[in-house]
Amino acid sequence: MGNQKCGKHSFILDKPPVITTWASVAGKKESEGPLSSTFDITKKDSYFGEKTWEQAEKRMQQIALEQLSKKAGIPKRDFGLVFSGDLLNQCIGSSFTLRNTGIPHIGLYGACSTMSESLLLASMAVGGGFFDKVVAMTSSHFASSERQYRFPLGYGGQRPPTAQWTVTGSGAALVCAGGKGPQITGCTVGTVTDLGIKDANNMGPAMAPAALATIRTHFEDMKTSAEDFDLIVTGDLGQLGKEALLTIAQKEGISLGGKLMDCGTQVFDLLKQDVHSGGSGCGCSAIVLCGHLLDQLNSGKLKKILFCGTGALLSPVSTQQGLPIPGVCHAVSICGG
Amino acid sequence: MGNQKCGKHSFILDKPPVITTWASVAGKKESEGPLSSTFDITKKDSYFGEKTWEQAEKRMQQIALEQLSKKAGIPKRDFGLVFSGDLLNQCIGSSFTLRNTGIPHIGLYGACSTMSESLLLASMAVGGGFFDKVVAMTSSHFASSERQYRFPLGYGGQRPPTAQWTVTGSGAALVCAGGKGPQITGCTVGTVTDLGIKDANNMGPAMAPAALATIRTHFEDMKTSAEDFDLIVTGDLGQLGKEALLTIAQKEGISLGGKLMDCGTQVFDLLKQDVHSGGSGCGCSAIVLCGHLLDQLNSGKLKKILFCGTGALLSPVSTQQGLPIPGVCHAVSICGG
Repeated sequence: MGNQKCGKHSFILDKPPVITTWASVAGKKESEGPLSSTFDITKKDSYFGEKTWEQAEKRMQQIALEQLSKKAGIPKRDFGLVFSGDLLNQCIGSSFTLRNTGIPHIGLYGACSTMSESLLLASMAVGGGFFDKVVAMTSSHFASSERQYRFPLGYGGQRPPTAQWTVTGSGAALVCAGGKGPQITGCTVGTVTDLGIKDANNMGPAMAPAALATIRTHFEDMKTSAEDFDLIVTGDLGQLGKEALLTIAQKEGISLGGKLMDCGTQVFDLLKQDVHSGGSGCGCSAIVLCGHLLDQLNSGKLKKILFCGTGALLSPVSTQQGLPIPGVCHAVSICGG
Repeated sequence: MGNQKCGKHSFILDKPPVITTWASVAGKKESEGPLSSTFDITKKDSYFGEKTWEQAEKRMQQIALEQLSKKAGIPKRDFGLVFSGDLLNQCIGSSFTLRNTGIPHIGLYGACSTMSESLLLASMAVGGGFFDKVVAMTSSHFASSERQYRFPLGYGGQRPPTAQWTVTGSGAALVCAGGKGPQITGCTVGTVTDLGIKDANNMGPAMAPAALATIRTHFEDMKTSAEDFDLIVTGDLGQLGKEALLTIAQKEGISLGGKLMDCGTQVFDLLKQDVHSGGSGCGCSAIVLCGHLLDQLNSGKLKKILFCGTGALLSPVSTQQGLPIPGVCHAVSICGG
C-alpha cells in the first residue's frame, strides 16, 4: 500500500521509521532541574569552551552529534543526512556544526518547532526510501537568544513574569529504516497561525492556537483522539501557554483528556529556578524528547505520544515593525519500541 | 523497485514528480535585464505597495503564490504543503506569507540554495507518496538584504567590484505526482563546504567549492557526466564565482563540458546594469528557474539540466566574529516535459 497522505495535512508511514538512538547535551541551569539525570552530557561552562555564545551553541550541536555517533556505534561520516536548524540568525549554529564534516545537510527554520520539524522530515526521507540513518537535530542557548531577540545580558533588563527562559541545550535523534527503538507512525504538518498577539515576552499564548490547530488536525486526519495517547507533548508553551491551550481547547470542544504535558514546564523547576513561565527555545523540546521521553518510550513506560513542537515565528525586525507573532506546530506520533 | 538512495548523497525518484506550474515575480532592475520577458509579474515599486522592504519581500512571495495558484487553476487552500525560506532573519518573508492561509508550511534555511533545497524536499514529499501538489518557493530583496547583511542603503556605502547585487524577486514551483511538465528525476543533497574565504563582499568564490563538491558527487553517485546535460546551472556564483568554479573544476579534472551557466550572470546585463559580479540572493536562481529555464524545458528547447542552487551560510554575527563563509549546494536533475 505504501505511505499515504491522510486527511488534510497528515501522512501515515507504511513502514514506520525507527528512532534507534538519541543524545542530549544541556547547560548548567538545565542540569540543576528535575530532568538532570536524563541528559547524556551536561556542562557547567556556558561557553562550552568557546569564545562566544554563538560558537558555544555550535559546540553543543557538535557534542550532541558526536554523542549520537558514539551511542549508535556509527561513524559520523556514515550518517546519510542531517536535518537541523536553530534560532540564530541564518542558523549559524547548525551550518557551522556541519561544515567540512562531509555529511549532507538540509537547513531548517521552524523556530522552537525545529525538533518536530526535523523528525517529520527525517521520517519522510527514511520512510520514502530516499535515505537511511537520518539525523534530526536542533539547539538553543539562553545567552545567544537573549542577545539576539531581547537585550544583551550585560544590560541587566528585567524579565517580565510572562517571559520564558531559553533552554541551553541540544538534542539529536537518529532515524533509521530498521532496528530497535521507538517508531514514528505518522505526522501532521502545521499551518502558520496568528491570532494577533504582539508581546515578544509572552510567546506561549502566541503559540497555543497553532498547537491546538495541529492537534485538532492530527485527531481529525488520523481519526484518533487523546485517548489513544499516553501523553500529548507540546514544545515550549510554558505555564501560561499551557493554560491558554487548555482554555481554548475546552472552548472549542477538543478534549486533551488530561494528557497534556509541556516541555517548557518540565525542564525546569518552575517554583525554585526563577524561570517565570518556564523553558523555551528549540533546545527545550529537543532535550526533553532526546532523553526523558524517548527513554520512557523505549522502556515501555510510555506506549504512544504525540510530540508537538511549537515555534514562534517572530523576528526582532517584525516586532519592531509592529507585527504580531505567528506560531507553528508540527506533530509527530511516536510509539514505544 | 521504488525510490532509492544512490551512491553517497543522492537519490533517484521511481516515479519522477512533475513540475506542472511555475510563477515568478521580479523588481524594477530585474525587469530591465535580459530575462525581462520571462517573468510573470514585474513591479516598478520596490516596496510592492508595502511600508517596509521586509514586508515588500513578503508581498512578493504572496504574489508569486497567488500567480502559481492562478496559473495552475488550483485554489491556494488546495496546495498540500509549501516548502519555503528566505534570507531575512528568522525567515519572516516566508512565515508571514503563509500565516493564516491554512496551507501546511515547512520553513527552510539554505540561504541562496533555497530554490533547489525546496525543490529537492518537494520531490521527496511527492515521490515518497506523502503529499500531492507541493510548492517550492523562495524570495530575496535587494534593499532588505543590503540593510541586513551589509549597510543601510541610506549610508551610501561603496560596493567593491567583487560584490554581487541581490535580486529582488520571488519564484514558486508546483510539484505534483502526475500531470504535464518538466520532471525531477534525481537529487543530490549538499555538504557544507568551507575553504576559509572570509570576504562577505566576495561570496561567489566562497560558494564555488560547495558547487563543485555537489556536482562531482552527483556525477559519481548517478554515474553520469556533463555530457548528459544541456546545462549545468549554478545559483548565484556571479562572474567571479563562475570563473573560480571553472578553475577549480579544471584543476581537479572534473569536466563541465562547456555546459556551465550561472543564474547570477544571466539575470542582469553585467556590462550595462552596474551590478559588478552579477546577481545573487535566493530570488536569483528562483526567478531564472521559474521562468526562463522551466519554460525552455517545457518547450523542448532544453532536454535536461542539473539545477544547482548555491548558498553562502554566513551571518553578520559570524562575519563579525571573524569566521569564514561556509557554502552549500543542492542539485536537482530536471528533464524536459
